[in-house]
Amino acid sequence: MKELRLGIIGLGSMGRVHADAILSGKIPRCRLAAICDPREESLAAFKDVPGFTRTSEIIRSGKVDAVLIATPHYSHTTIGIEALRAGLHVLVEKPISVHKADCERLIAAHRSKKQVFAAMFNQRTDPFYSKLRDLIRTGELGKIRRINWIITNWFRTAAYYASGGWRATWAGEGGGVLLNQCPHNLDLWQWLFGMPTKVRAFCRTGRYHDIEVEDDVTAYLEYPDGTTGVFITSTGEAPGTNRLEVVGERGRVVLEKDRFRFTRNEVEMSEFSRTTPHGFASPGTWDVEIPVSGHGGQHNEILDNFTCAVLDKTPLIAPAAEGIHSVELANAMILSSFTDKTVELPLKSAVYERFLKKKISSSTHKKVVNPKTTADDFSKSFAK
Amino acid sequence: MKELRLGIIGLGSMGRVHADAILSGKIPRCRLAAICDPREESLAAFKDVPGFTRTSEIIRSGKVDAVLIATPHYSHTTIGIEALRAGLHVLVEKPISVHKADCERLIAAHRSKKQVFAAMFNQRTDPFYSKLRDLIRTGELGKIRRINWIITNWFRTAAYYASGGWRATWAGEGGGVLLNQCPHNLDLWQWLFGMPTKVRAFCRTGRYHDIEVEDDVTAYLEYPDGTTGVFITSTGEAPGTNRLEVVGERGRVVLEKDRFRFTRNEVEMSEFSRTTPHGFASPGTWDVEIPVSGHGGQHNEILDNFTCAVLDKTPLIAPAAEGIHSVELANAMILSSFTDKTVELPLKSAVYERFLKKKISSSTHKKVVNPKTTADDFSKSFAK
Repeated sequence: MKELRLGIIGLGSMGRVHADAILSGKIPRCRLAAICDPREESLAAFKDVPGFTRTSEIIRSGKVDAVLIATPHYSHTTIGIEALRAGLHVLVEKPISVHKADCERLIAAHRSKKQVFAAMFNQRTDPFYSKLRDLIRTGELGKIRRINWIITNWFRTAAYYASGGWRATWAGEGGGVLLNQCPHNLDLWQWLFGMPTKVRAFCRTGRYHDIEVEDDVTAYLEYPDGTTGVFITSTGEAPGTNRLEVVGERGRVVLEKDRFRFTRNEVEMSEFSRTTPHGFASPGTWDVEIPVSGHGGQHNEILDNFTCAVLDKTPLIAPAAEGIHSVELANAMILSSFTDKTVELPLKSAVYERFLKKKISSSTHKKVVNPKTTADDFSKSFAK
Repeated sequence: MKELRLGIIGLGSMGRVHADAILSGKIPRCRLAAICDPREESLAAFKDVPGFTRTSEIIRSGKVDAVLIATPHYSHTTIGIEALRAGLHVLVEKPISVHKADCERLIAAHRSKKQVFAAMFNQRTDPFYSKLRDLIRTGELGKIRRINWIITNWFRTAAYYASGGWRATWAGEGGGVLLNQCPHNLDLWQWLFGMPTKVRAFCRTGRYHDIEVEDDVTAYLEYPDGTTGVFITSTGEAPGTNRLEVVGERGRVVLEKDRFRFTRNEVEMSEFSRTTPHGFASPGTWDVEIPVSGHGGQHNEILDNFTCAVLDKTPLIAPAAEGIHSVELANAMILSSFTDKTVELPLKSAVYERFLKKKISSSTHKKVVNPKTTADDFSKSFAK
């Protein structure tokens, strides 16, 4: 195979972004071979590309080697399973599913190692995060002790939520900021630090918007080795903060405002504490600024990596199976908040599925939908 | 009265700092009229000042109009009550007591409005905090929505904890970082933002040191109006962080590294969200840097203010009665952590007193004490 024939399923905001990237030649050896959307008018915008209105048609069409699934969250599971069973390579938008049990079902459908199955965790391509990961993996930062991520620059307006009846509903998205905006951050969290074993979260539903799901979250995470973490997010705050602080024995890293600052301890902090004869001394430090330019190839890099994985067996940046972790973290935060208890991980997926189905069936919230408002400037969502 | 005759009770680290300040003339109209410490050798260092080894003697001596109590924490209550009953003006070091019930007893002993009763919350004199308070009080920051204080630059070494058998024990201090180092920060918290009604905390005892009390804390605080807060502290982290972020409807303030930055929203964030037709827009902002020079008069300013309060009826910067709040916050964090539950405020003081007495009576921890180590460079404790 010299060229990947890719089909895009779902021509909403993200699907169109991906289609435009491929059509404008930004993804070498990747051809937009077909598209699929139930709305005929969405297909009409790409009149030179074969279009389908039903997912089973594009999957069985013989026109595609792979599909990119960019549909509403819940259908990632069903469409993903169908595509995998049909032998296609699959690239799925985040979150890979809405809840852990669906993730398990989707991942279980991936039986052949010859099939490439990836997830659109484009922020893994950002060198700020990959360099931090290197710093951790090489031991430069020492054993991790504390993590604090304030990621509240996901500001969304009432107009955003009113732009679709499915948005920010249990039935439509299965959650709020944790399921729609934060899968990236939660994926990076587990990619950088691994999975905690305890989650205690405080989610506020409809704090800033007239929605039934969480738009404001404070979560405390704990690891078996004692590492603690705090994750704070919101779609109601402007200007919003994006500051990731990581404390290791060898010093502290702060990622904020396009700067990567590392205050490096000359001696590990605990060793210094044990060995100094002085009560108020502290280790000598270096102020290290790690130069990082740009934020990587993002969506196009993931698309390119997916193409290369199929054509050249290049290792994936973001295997879809790893997408279960960000969903599990989001699920655990919501469950902890509603049950007012600490949730132990691994999360029991059946317990969460029952919880979520009950939220859906007992929902009485009347969502305000204003067809005149649109999420019109979607590219702003990932331009920062 | 033209001059305040002050007695200092307790010539440990802080008592000596205060004595030196007065003797070197830094506090106008305040004379060091007597000192008290059970250790004769401590008195000998100030040979021109009348010395007593028993608190009741200095209190009844007739040589002092006021006392500054700088003894170990638990005795603040008993000595404070004795001094107030004797009609003296009292300035008490922080914390005013170890637990809320003792605070109530101490405050109840202050019956005469003619008596000045103050607490050594020297950080209230820091213009970074007083300017922030002004910003909040004048409404410039708008309604407060979220607070995040990472105050982990209280690094203390094993030598520090080994320098006294009473240090970092339930019987000696009634807690760890929350009772010894954080009373300042917890006082500032309540002074700036008022008291929350819910506290859920995660304290780690002996995480970084061989001690029985907490040396690492993550706490989640909630207010009746929905405001959320996170307070993180530790004596085990180097280099440590001191970053206070306050999000209001009108923008965000960050105090860190001697900078006061205010990102000001042109329109309140919630109003903007409600009224814009755009899904991804956010309010225009100004980058405001508020110039602040220095960190105020600190201990000497509190001593001076206390002197002026007695001689001129100047209003107090830190009335002792307000000291109950920081103790209540510390107690609630410890109780929440040990009971693994959210604690509702106001805290039931008798419940906490029983809890603490049980911690003391059931303590089995063998504290390492090394008389060769000292908290020798104590001034570093508040020089930053």
